[in-house]
Amino acid sequence: MSRTSTPQVSEACVDFMNIEFVRYAIESSKSSKEPGKSAAHKLERMGFRVGQKLAERYTRSRPRFTGELDRIKFLCKDFWQIVFKKHIDNLRTNHRGVYVLYDARFRWLLTLSGPGALEHAQDYIHFPRGLIRGCCAALGLSCTVSTDVPALPTCTFTVKITNKTTRA
Amino acid sequence: MSRTSTPQVSEACVDFMNIEFVRYAIESSKSSKEPGKSAAHKLERMGFRVGQKLAERYTRSRPRFTGELDRIKFLCKDFWQIVFKKHIDNLRTNHRGVYVLYDARFRWLLTLSGPGALEHAQDYIHFPRGLIRGCCAALGLSCTVSTDVPALPTCTFTVKITNKTTRA
Repeated sequence: MSRTSTPQVSEACVDFMNIEFVRYAIESSKSSKEPGKSAAHKLERMGFRVGQKLAERYTRSRPRFTGELDRIKFLCKDFWQIVFKKHIDNLRTNHRGVYVLYDARFRWLLTLSGPGALEHAQDYIHFPRGLIRGCCAALGLSCTVSTDVPALPTCTFTVKITNKTTRA
Repeated sequence: MSRTSTPQVSEACVDFMNIEFVRYAIESSKSSKEPGKSAAHKLERMGFRVGQKLAERYTRSRPRFTGELDRIKFLCKDFWQIVFKKHIDNLRTNHRGVYVLYDARFRWLLTLSGPGALEHAQDYIHFPRGLIRGCCAALGLSCTVSTDVPALPTCTFTVKITNKTTRA
């Protein structure tokens, strides 16, 4: 990872905090009295809240969205830039509420390697899945998000819009 | 909080993740089978690991430290800048291994207000206490850290160096 002369708060800080999130959720699920609440569920819930707050903050002073696609573009460009310092590499849609977001180098999978890495990668996509759902919620879109890691560090997020509120 | 034209990954992202850390640690401690492992302890441990990794990353290509004070200055300036985008406002020392770091506007206390805020503030200083210990550990200094919040959003961290390794 390249270093710039000005220390970048963001990237390393967010990355290391994310690693702790994952480790902690897994650990605490093991010792929890409520095993039904899985680490995946917890991580997604945390991601949801962070995503929602971030989207609320960063849409505060921008022009109104003109439609669903406009909102998804905000997610793929602005929101992804805010969290991951890059845009989603490819966006496809069936124009009926399904959007496939393709990140060729998903930052939270970049450091995984070795045997079991692909399996371990699953732990790292619950939080971002929540982030996406939270961002969409803040933009007035309910959705489900499924993920796929075909090969490290690639990640595909399939967003299915389930209903739309009238919030602009 | 001012917004710049380029979205700042860091600040909001780290802040919201921190809020989730605290909420999660408190929640999971309630439902844990091991109540001895308090939320405070968990948060401090997470902070330690994040602080350690950050300090390791950001000292990688800098010149060797010349002594204890030099390391503490790194903590107060560079490290604080990395995480909180500001320097510690005031540093005092008894020149015998005790350093008092004074942050007049500690970022993670800025949004707290209302009744019970000062009490609630206690939840937000375990993670940064761990961050400081982790940073010091990466720099070869073992220490204990105690905190005081005399009035929001002021925070004082008292760092007591307990032993020194020879790592430069």
